[in-house]
Amino acid sequence: MATETTGHDWRSYEPLALSPILTHALDAFYEQGFHGTAVRDIARRVGVTVPALYYYYENKEAILVTLLETATNDVASRAFAAAEEGGERPEQRLANVIEAVVLHMTHRVRMAALDSELRYLLPANRKHYAATRKKIERLLTGIIADGVRDKVFQVADVAETGRALLGMCQSVATWYREDGPLRPEKLAAKYVEIALSTVGTTKRPRKN
Amino acid sequence: MATETTGHDWRSYEPLALSPILTHALDAFYEQGFHGTAVRDIARRVGVTVPALYYYYENKEAILVTLLETATNDVASRAFAAAEEGGERPEQRLANVIEAVVLHMTHRVRMAALDSELRYLLPANRKHYAATRKKIERLLTGIIADGVRDKVFQVADVAETGRALLGMCQSVATWYREDGPLRPEKLAAKYVEIALSTVGTTKRPRKN
Repeated sequence: MATETTGHDWRSYEPLALSPILTHALDAFYEQGFHGTAVRDIARRVGVTVPALYYYYENKEAILVTLLETATNDVASRAFAAAEEGGERPEQRLANVIEAVVLHMTHRVRMAALDSELRYLLPANRKHYAATRKKIERLLTGIIADGVRDKVFQVADVAETGRALLGMCQSVATWYREDGPLRPEKLAAKYVEIALSTVGTTKRPRKN
Repeated sequence: MATETTGHDWRSYEPLALSPILTHALDAFYEQGFHGTAVRDIARRVGVTVPALYYYYENKEAILVTLLETATNDVASRAFAAAEEGGERPEQRLANVIEAVVLHMTHRVRMAALDSELRYLLPANRKHYAATRKKIERLLTGIIADGVRDKVFQVADVAETGRALLGMCQSVATWYREDGPLRPEKLAAKYVEIALSTVGTTKRPRKN
């Protein structure tokens, strides 16, 4: 089984282990937005001087870039582990990837919500992030293409469906509240069901 | 036909007719974000003094609120006109509403992208916006429920599917570029196809 070889428990979320600077910067960006946060706000939250903070990060954008890369690398590695664990069957692979992405959008909603700050990054910094996001989109699109080839999925436009499903999952981060009534696992299961309908399959993956 | 009574041509987009203050504020927010824009930046773009600007708007938030309300009222009235034009058949109504929302997300991408600034609004100001967004979500959910009742749609969770489809359409505003290769009408047609699959219908609405 692929599960044993990857060793990546993509369903398991520990409390976020970020450095004090990144932890406080994440809170500040979430509450005030990237542009609304000054470097001295972050320094004050951390309890260090502004020069001390500049010792670690060149500027505020470098902090946002680090957070975005951390988030996007995390969701990507979970999505790929989830796909691998799905084995050969497209419906199981798709179900796993959707579950992995929605678990990230909920368990890591503060990180995921940073997404909306992305367009303020310098183009060079946007590149890495965009490339990783594209990888997840291509993973989804590849699975959908496999399902169409195997005649288990019915889809008019494979690429646009992959992008739409990823957008659907990402939009969860715009409304999900950590203190709300919906548990990540429950919501992820609903999105799996919705995504499987979207690709027009009546096959359902095995329950875990 | 409902079309003739509503008199709302929900597919037609004229160039945005906003006041100079709103036009320049929209550009500034789109380029620099709400928090990254100072009132004096807007005043400079408009070519008026800061006190002159305060004559019209109490503060920067009041400008954002006006823009968000304009955008959300526009998409809501188009969505409802589109549903009405769809007549009695759920698949036609759903297709029209999805088309209307995606046309808004593309033709009015600068307005739609303001959505990500929403969480910086004061709760009282968020209310009207949230209520209008909820109305569109309920419109979609109602249509999906009708389709399930009429046995033309197959959906496991009506409410979550409505929210997911709206999120899917809204996510278009996060990546759509006005100078990109995809025309709004073409993209809207693809999303209609994807949404109809999501609700598990094989019925297709009539072509316009």
